[in-house]
Amino acid sequence: MMTDPGTGPRPAAMLALGRAVLAQQPFSTMLGAELTAFDGSIVELTIPIRADLLQQNGFARGGVLSYAADNALTFAGGLTFGSAVLTSEFKINYVRPARGVAIIARATLVYGGRRQAVCRADIFTRDDAGAEVLVAVAQGTIAAIVTS
Amino acid sequence: MMTDPGTGPRPAAMLALGRAVLAQQPFSTMLGAELTAFDGSIVELTIPIRADLLQQNGFARGGVLSYAADNALTFAGGLTFGSAVLTSEFKINYVRPARGVAIIARATLVYGGRRQAVCRADIFTRDDAGAEVLVAVAQGTIAAIVTS
Amino acid sequence: MMTDPGTGPRPAAMLALGRAVLAQQPFSTMLGAELTAFDGSIVELTIPIRADLLQQNGFARGGVLSYAADNALTFAGGLTFGSAVLTSEFKINYVRPARGVAIIARATLVYGGRRQAVCRADIFTRDDAGAEVLVAVAQGTIAAIVTS
Amino acid sequence: MMTDPGTGPRPAAMLALGRAVLAQQPFSTMLGAELTAFDGSIVELTIPIRADLLQQNGFARGGVLSYAADNALTFAGGLTFGSAVLTSEFKINYVRPARGVAIIARATLVYGGRRQAVCRADIFTRDDAGAEVLVAVAQGTIAAIVTS
Repeated sequence: MMTDPGTGPRPAAMLALGRAVLAQQPFSTMLGAELTAFDGSIVELTIPIRADLLQQNGFARGGVLSYAADNALTFAGGLTFGSAVLTSEFKINYVRPARGVAIIARATLVYGGRRQAVCRADIFTRDDAGAEVLVAVAQGTIAAIVTS
Repeated sequence: MMTDPGTGPRPAAMLALGRAVLAQQPFSTMLGAELTAFDGSIVELTIPIRADLLQQNGFARGGVLSYAADNALTFAGGLTFGSAVLTSEFKINYVRPARGVAIIARATLVYGGRRQAVCRADIFTRDDAGAEVLVAVAQGTIAAIVTS
Repeated sequence: MMTDPGTGPRPAAMLALGRAVLAQQPFSTMLGAELTAFDGSIVELTIPIRADLLQQNGFARGGVLSYAADNALTFAGGLTFGSAVLTSEFKINYVRPARGVAIIARATLVYGGRRQAVCRADIFTRDDAGAEVLVAVAQGTIAAIVTS
Repeated sequence: MMTDPGTGPRPAAMLALGRAVLAQQPFSTMLGAELTAFDGSIVELTIPIRADLLQQNGFARGGVLSYAADNALTFAGGLTFGSAVLTSEFKINYVRPARGVAIIARATLVYGGRRQAVCRADIFTRDDAGAEVLVAVAQGTIAAIVTS
């Protein structure tokens, strides 16, 4: 799957599949999360920042960033297996306050095995001029759900 | 602060303060998160499981669990400093599917320094008979926000 | 295996097995690591602090602590499967400088599944009077090595 | 410091400084660790694989990889502050067995603040033909040691 990054019908088909999965997740829908790009190696998840995603100081909550990281990692892993997956574990470092109009999480596969994938994600905020700032970095394990 | 666990006015006052902070977080309010207990060493955060917190397979989303872990860790760290804090980083392992009527995150301080605290959290689900099952474990760093 | 903690021949037999495994690890032998206790739920690994385990400031290197954490987590997971295991991933927070005469890592199983276990470890140093201080905490995933 | 990557005297001077620091670490010396490159943004630490770094199955121990990751992260963070640093915490995912003639850890700065840096590391093994394979990935926080 990763042999043909950025070209051909595969990334577009995968992106469509990912969007169908995301649309079935009430929590993702509630957050307004969208899969906005997939070029064959990087999955991009975008969440518009709304008033109800903020914490008391006006920044987007860490919980929203960790959701974005977790879900982007999951989709990056899902590309490896082309099947149902779940996040086994992940770690996130918050590096800057998250202010702006949107949160963008970009995740890539670092290693894909038979049953597990290790992925990394960079989480940015975008301001209304389109400039991006790195706000968090994450790393985690995605497991294929084996149904037998 | 940790010298008088479980007794006296301090835990109750801290719990009230924590609830006031939580009430100012739109994201927490949207999720229905509540601080349900603090005995001087363990902070308990509870989130009723609603339809919009689920993922496509009917389990509560990892993102809800990681929010619960993150926020419980933050409150556990906040008790150390008695001031504004934020989560610097954390790691979570999901161990079982999260089904039931509520998510309960219990966090404790492992180490409290001058500027940083290290905390752990156990995240459970509770079924309608009140039985709890461990669904995730987390560990992270909470930093005091220094305003000078 | 965890049904009879602290009693019966099982913990003693497991400890003997663990020691045989450790004796086959040249790196562990070089470090002087020993399995010093197993009561059915907590595995204890001890490393005497020698001059060549120090860093330039006279404290034991983080690398020694992370080795201790990693290996104690692995043994705690190994008790679940009773077979060959390896550490898939772990996270460690260093909380205090490691000075004293020995490093002691105590690990426990948090969750044991069919193929994976999640464990936690507390790492202490012991001074020459026998007093212990917590210096690091860890959490990680141990996988059973499936040979088929 | 990161404004002039790969050119000028700065990287060479930093590399020399890093080597002096490493030479003062008995544990690093025992392991045979060497700082083999620094181009202004990537720090490279190399450890020849010797018999006493192996575990019972003939692969290099996870503990050696985590040492390599930890130390490479520390050096990458040290470049931010140009002063004494220590690893606050890190996380490592092992992705493949570590066999070959050397372990190479390459770390970069992801974010550098006033007191803390977040870094990532990729850990490879090199075989006797010079081919490299990714065996682990890590992410962690490096803190400046403030002496006041």
